[in-house]
Amino acid sequence: MGKTIRFGVSLNSDLLDQFDALCEEKSYPNRSEAIRDLIRGVLVEREQQLGGKDLAAVLTLVYDHHFSDLTQRLMEAQHDSHDVILTTMHVHLDHHNCLEVLILKGAGDTIKRLADKLIATKGVKHGKLTLTTTGQGIA
Amino acid sequence: MGKTIRFGVSLNSDLLDQFDALCEEKSYPNRSEAIRDLIRGVLVEREQQLGGKDLAAVLTLVYDHHFSDLTQRLMEAQHDSHDVILTTMHVHLDHHNCLEVLILKGAGDTIKRLADKLIATKGVKHGKLTLTTTGQGIA
Amino acid sequence: MGKTIRFGVSLNSDLLDQFDALCEEKSYPNRSEAIRDLIRGVLVEREQQLGGKDLAAVLTLVYDHHFSDLTQRLMEAQHDSHDVILTTMHVHLDHHNCLEVLILKGAGDTIKRLADKLIATKGVKHGKLTLTTTGQGIA
Amino acid sequence: MGKTIRFGVSLNSDLLDQFDALCEEKSYPNRSEAIRDLIRGVLVEREQQLGGKDLAAVLTLVYDHHFSDLTQRLMEAQHDSHDVILTTMHVHLDHHNCLEVLILKGAGDTIKRLADKLIATKGVKHGKLTLTTTGQGIA
Repeated sequence: MGKTIRFGVSLNSDLLDQFDALCEEKSYPNRSEAIRDLIRGVLVEREQQLGGKDLAAVLTLVYDHHFSDLTQRLMEAQHDSHDVILTTMHVHLDHHNCLEVLILKGAGDTIKRLADKLIATKGVKHGKLTLTTTGQGIA
Repeated sequence: MGKTIRFGVSLNSDLLDQFDALCEEKSYPNRSEAIRDLIRGVLVEREQQLGGKDLAAVLTLVYDHHFSDLTQRLMEAQHDSHDVILTTMHVHLDHHNCLEVLILKGAGDTIKRLADKLIATKGVKHGKLTLTTTGQGIA
Repeated sequence: MGKTIRFGVSLNSDLLDQFDALCEEKSYPNRSEAIRDLIRGVLVEREQQLGGKDLAAVLTLVYDHHFSDLTQRLMEAQHDSHDVILTTMHVHLDHHNCLEVLILKGAGDTIKRLADKLIATKGVKHGKLTLTTTGQGIA
Repeated sequence: MGKTIRFGVSLNSDLLDQFDALCEEKSYPNRSEAIRDLIRGVLVEREQQLGGKDLAAVLTLVYDHHFSDLTQRLMEAQHDSHDVILTTMHVHLDHHNCLEVLILKGAGDTIKRLADKLIATKGVKHGKLTLTTTGQGIA
């Protein structure tokens, strides 16, 4: 892994004042960390567009477990794709509603297909796939 | 909770053919479930814009646990907000990289502030807040 | 173009009540039009992901025309891509700020590359590419 | 307007190499301009979330002008809101399809309501509201 280096950015002072205010609002310890986050953000976005590298992802599902044999169907669909599902976690939101989180790792296409399938399952109220990075190559 | 009712939608047959193809591609069991998902999607989005109701949310963090006292700092920041963090799950992606998922429930503003703070922590490579619904009122 | 047909959707009445309220809030003349819009929305999104078909797009740029030779540089970059730029429109927002809109039509990749280039031009304060559809094949 | 100042950012050299590659791919003249764009991007986003300031915005509509009295209805709805519509531009995409762009300026809520209404009009195939900035206060 590379060493830390320092470079200069020139900027209008009004713009910098506004950025500093936003950094404070978002609890950044300093300006550099905020800029590193912006940079890592566009790199991760690019990584996701390009494909080719494994992605990490989180699938969030909200459903009513009383719904017919939904729990069973979700379980079976997940086992069919056990190789890209690292782990899952389940929260009982109330008497009816469950929130389930799946941590996924694999090719972007495979992950998206699995997410589509689980979200499409009858009884799932809301589903969202959040793509992130495996962190490899992102310093 | 209301009973199931049925209503008619009129549509150009070309549009319907394309929609049916997309439903099949996304593994929907039938057209009604796909339309229910579209409807629930805009309702959940609206719920998030309006505020006022508790939201459920998932925060995804990727970080290098070798980074100075990062684990400790994340732990402390989380305990300061333990009332909106239902649970967390941690995956060791490789020797360096961790993926941590926090399930949150509470007022939208509180959740966003906490997410901002954790994402801004030095050493966190990537963070994303995914807003979803508690499922209450979404049939 | 296909003829209009009618099909039934079954739905929980609570969900339908909420959807009707949202349709009214968004000024939809009726439920069918709102559902057609949801369906066209996902089809257009899919069209953009798949590539292969020409897209229509709108590029929005905000810049300060006092900035060195910015107007000249934007003009030249646009002429280099005149084949995908159908037309442009310019508004003088105030003494300094201009809003320029370019209507683009062509392959997704070409459009994105041109947008990247214009947004990256020094002096452009904000730029956003909005992908839409040529309307062909969307009934 | 403030003067140009220069500040240092410290960064891992691997991260910087990747960022430089992305800057080149996106045609940035130099690293500073790319970072200024990232900073302006989050400031404009924040401006839109906060409300209170006038926004500039572009509404993109695609529709079939053969559709009943659509042109007339769009025209009337626009005149009802002429105070926030600075100008409009129209492109004949093909024999059927039109692309119309409206440049809007005003309070965020007013703009969104007008966009909702025009997008909801029967016969509009696709509509998208793109929020940007009036450029005031963004250096």
